[in-house]
Amino acid sequence: MAVTLKDVAERAGVSTSAVSRTFTDGASVSAKTRAKVEKAADALGYSPNALASSLTTGRTKLIGLISNNFHNPLFLEVFDRFTRGLQDRGLRPLLVNLSDETDPVHSVRMMRQYSVDGAIIASSTLPPSFAEAYRDAGIPVVHSFGRYTTAPQVHVVGIDNVACGRMAGETLIARGYRRVAFLGGPEGATSTQDRALGFLGALHEHPEIEVSVSYASAYSFDAGRVEMTKRLMADPAQAYFCGDDVLSVGALSAVQEAGLNCPRDIGIIGLNDMQMAGWQNINLTTIRQPVAQIIGASIDLVIGTVEDPTRHPETRLFPCKVIERGTLRPLG
Amino acid sequence: MAVTLKDVAERAGVSTSAVSRTFTDGASVSAKTRAKVEKAADALGYSPNALASSLTTGRTKLIGLISNNFHNPLFLEVFDRFTRGLQDRGLRPLLVNLSDETDPVHSVRMMRQYSVDGAIIASSTLPPSFAEAYRDAGIPVVHSFGRYTTAPQVHVVGIDNVACGRMAGETLIARGYRRVAFLGGPEGATSTQDRALGFLGALHEHPEIEVSVSYASAYSFDAGRVEMTKRLMADPAQAYFCGDDVLSVGALSAVQEAGLNCPRDIGIIGLNDMQMAGWQNINLTTIRQPVAQIIGASIDLVIGTVEDPTRHPETRLFPCKVIERGTLRPLG
Repeated sequence: MAVTLKDVAERAGVSTSAVSRTFTDGASVSAKTRAKVEKAADALGYSPNALASSLTTGRTKLIGLISNNFHNPLFLEVFDRFTRGLQDRGLRPLLVNLSDETDPVHSVRMMRQYSVDGAIIASSTLPPSFAEAYRDAGIPVVHSFGRYTTAPQVHVVGIDNVACGRMAGETLIARGYRRVAFLGGPEGATSTQDRALGFLGALHEHPEIEVSVSYASAYSFDAGRVEMTKRLMADPAQAYFCGDDVLSVGALSAVQEAGLNCPRDIGIIGLNDMQMAGWQNINLTTIRQPVAQIIGASIDLVIGTVEDPTRHPETRLFPCKVIERGTLRPLG
Repeated sequence: MAVTLKDVAERAGVSTSAVSRTFTDGASVSAKTRAKVEKAADALGYSPNALASSLTTGRTKLIGLISNNFHNPLFLEVFDRFTRGLQDRGLRPLLVNLSDETDPVHSVRMMRQYSVDGAIIASSTLPPSFAEAYRDAGIPVVHSFGRYTTAPQVHVVGIDNVACGRMAGETLIARGYRRVAFLGGPEGATSTQDRALGFLGALHEHPEIEVSVSYASAYSFDAGRVEMTKRLMADPAQAYFCGDDVLSVGALSAVQEAGLNCPRDIGIIGLNDMQMAGWQNINLTTIRQPVAQIIGASIDLVIGTVEDPTRHPETRLFPCKVIERGTLRPLG
């Protein structure tokens, strides 16, 4: 019942080899032959099978996206961009859920079983050891949302979290807040550490402004709400840089539940610009992380490394910017 | 460099055939031999390769999840459950983004290229023709969140949307609302049509209660906000059953932006119980759709049909229930 290469060749009036070359990336075939083959293939509903093709190329065209936070709404955009980007290139998006996995070795074994050509680790909380374990196992890998270093061991694509922390600090300073705080994500996450560093760096130049730091247990609504509720019971700051948008919305909820108002009583700025940040009844001022560019560059890099496994590790950083909404007092 | 079957056999002191059988689903091997092989495989970091295994079995162990609404937060839970469920069974989760696809034939061709063993269509807005095109192409398929019929053409797993619409209507009636409305999703979606039917059915028994119906252009925050803003400019109802939670939050935002309060001025009940519905600053009363059970049953059915392609189409429905939060006036 399935249409074969031979059926297509007969209908197109060309050799089976010509059909095969038409559907092999990089193989030589004349424009005229290609047109005939594609027309015949369309008419017959023929599509080359990835499994068959992987036998000749040694590639599966499977690229894994590895995540450990399926509850963070930012990942809706990550999954959307990842799947579209791979589909546009004729590749196959495989999803890997490491929510309960702490051992890089297990995760490498899983990737081998999955037979992916390469993998994108999309996480700011998985330690660098995961990406390095993949590299050691010979699996082309990109760490998206990871921490970059000046001597990169693996490809890293993301933002400069130190610069973003500084941007958040400067935004609060410019609005005249005199007591500010960082309400970070989990203390062990490199993104949290770097955002804290940048934030404190900006405040360091303003010794007249009081600054404090605390950490939530996770990048989640509940963790942000719990941590802000604690802050409100002591002597709260006037404005908070929350480690990400989900934390921010949790913090915002705590403020509202305490009968206070953002930005009248307390200011909040987040980071990510997830979809819900723009919902009018949330209306969160935040720093936008350019997810589309990050995922696009990650796909380019992982494919480039599948093509050329000797390729040197690269760092690609994209600028962030403040998105003004309603949770900080206005400038000046 | 890669560890082979032979390396494992030598270390375990068993035949290569014993190693092969240990890693072949359903093959016979003694518990003692299996333990030896697994210990040796662990020590060497050996993992059987899915590509190699698919050559002998004719199966790729790839199951596709097909979605066309990557912006609906409900899909965070769908993706999480789908990936965990497949991983637990040693299968590989492939993600397919049909957001821009309207032609079932293209989509079948894509599935063939992807070489999936089977597919789950997770969508209440894709027409039945998609699942039927897959079935016609011999691809085991389950339509999750689809409309069931008494003569099923493909497996359907989900909820009884008519019953849920009725549940929403009865919930509003029980709270004494005298002018109620359905603010549905896109009019072409079977889920919208069925929820409207059930809602109107419940109200039909109460001719003393005024009822009206309108439709949003999509299951999205913006569409819900736009539609509710229109309703508020005319003569609004006292309470709205919104087609899903994202629509509900958009409607809630419109109510708040108009200077009104839920539930004091207007009641809202949603459907799904997505994560954000439980956020305290949203606190949406809604009807819970049991996503974990739906995805679990969908995985069971698609695997069952891969094993036995002659299996007859089944319908599996799971009950919904009202989750009481803060957007409806209290009972009695």
